[in-house]
Amino acid sequence: MSTEDKNIQWNVPEPTLRRLPWYLAYVKLLKSSDEDMVSSTRIAKKIGVDPSQVAKDLSFVNITGKTRVGYEIDELIRVLGKFLGFTDIHRAVLFGVGSLGAALLQDSGLSQYGLQIVAAFDISPKRIGTKINTIPIYHTRDLPLKIKELGVNICVLTVPILKAQEVTDWVIGCGIKAIWNFTPYRIKVPHTIIVQNTSLYSHLAVMFNRINAIK
Amino acid sequence: MSTEDKNIQWNVPEPTLRRLPWYLAYVKLLKSSDEDMVSSTRIAKKIGVDPSQVAKDLSFVNITGKTRVGYEIDELIRVLGKFLGFTDIHRAVLFGVGSLGAALLQDSGLSQYGLQIVAAFDISPKRIGTKINTIPIYHTRDLPLKIKELGVNICVLTVPILKAQEVTDWVIGCGIKAIWNFTPYRIKVPHTIIVQNTSLYSHLAVMFNRINAIK
Repeated sequence: MSTEDKNIQWNVPEPTLRRLPWYLAYVKLLKSSDEDMVSSTRIAKKIGVDPSQVAKDLSFVNITGKTRVGYEIDELIRVLGKFLGFTDIHRAVLFGVGSLGAALLQDSGLSQYGLQIVAAFDISPKRIGTKINTIPIYHTRDLPLKIKELGVNICVLTVPILKAQEVTDWVIGCGIKAIWNFTPYRIKVPHTIIVQNTSLYSHLAVMFNRINAIK
Repeated sequence: MSTEDKNIQWNVPEPTLRRLPWYLAYVKLLKSSDEDMVSSTRIAKKIGVDPSQVAKDLSFVNITGKTRVGYEIDELIRVLGKFLGFTDIHRAVLFGVGSLGAALLQDSGLSQYGLQIVAAFDISPKRIGTKINTIPIYHTRDLPLKIKELGVNICVLTVPILKAQEVTDWVIGCGIKAIWNFTPYRIKVPHTIIVQNTSLYSHLAVMFNRINAIK
């Protein structure tokens, strides 16, 4: 851990962590318009949250604004990106090269936000030994060997629902510490393991319900 | 709207809509083990929520359990899928065929959950006129014509941050009623327009922070 890392506060509230990328996106937009400074009030107005909330969220980040003029945009982009982990490289493996898994392997955008998928695993003989977007696909049973070789502790989970828990238990047994769960299945893990659930389908369910409500 | 649709309650609380797909995934797993019935208590235990919460969530859905034995699994799968909108077809367009946009076009899984992307739009001459996964890519300016031809009212937004608001305004002006926003930008829309934010990057930020906390 570098000295700068030591100044970063961990276990930040999840709502704050979800709002900070909005602020980052907005200040990137301002930078593209050649602006130099931004106040928390201006960010608040643009994003549609309370100014005190913006100030509170930014208090977790190691940055100091100047009275009246606010924050330097270049520094805010640098510090926020660092704080959110987007400027580090986090190596990950992906489990389940089905439709969604293959799609995520294609998405080079993830590596620009700090997640680099370095290997994928599947059980289909058709997929094993091939590559997608230069990422090699191995047999599931090769994980214990590869995990040491590649030095990864994050697993992106894109297997079918019926395999979600079984694969979860397997990757944790192999040393995985964090799982980005794209399946709609509610996996169970020991309390030391980190799970981030991103079910695209639950987001679809919310959107469909709202659409039907206005029909 | 069919008679069955009229029995469905709209504007269901978002947390309920996010939990129901978990229950669906679990009962699909039970079905694969040839089970017939499931109680709300059993669902609750498996998913890790309170039994009264499961009963409350399922009260929004048009299904009745039997005392002691609970719900018929086949019917629960059918009714939940219908309720969540997964068994209907919702036609959508996708805006911005960059890395993430192209990846989503590749993901045939979305159509199994009710979202069918029927056309994509971009401004790059290299992409316009080509197809990804049989989905044609048109120039952005063709949206007004295509929107009538295709009968769509949902837009999947995967443009760069700097274009997010501009494209949002454009598609709403063309008649889009719902936007599935994958950009980390907090778009502003009139109150009659539905927005579902799914920023993969904010989920990454939460995961990275939790990983660093256990280091």
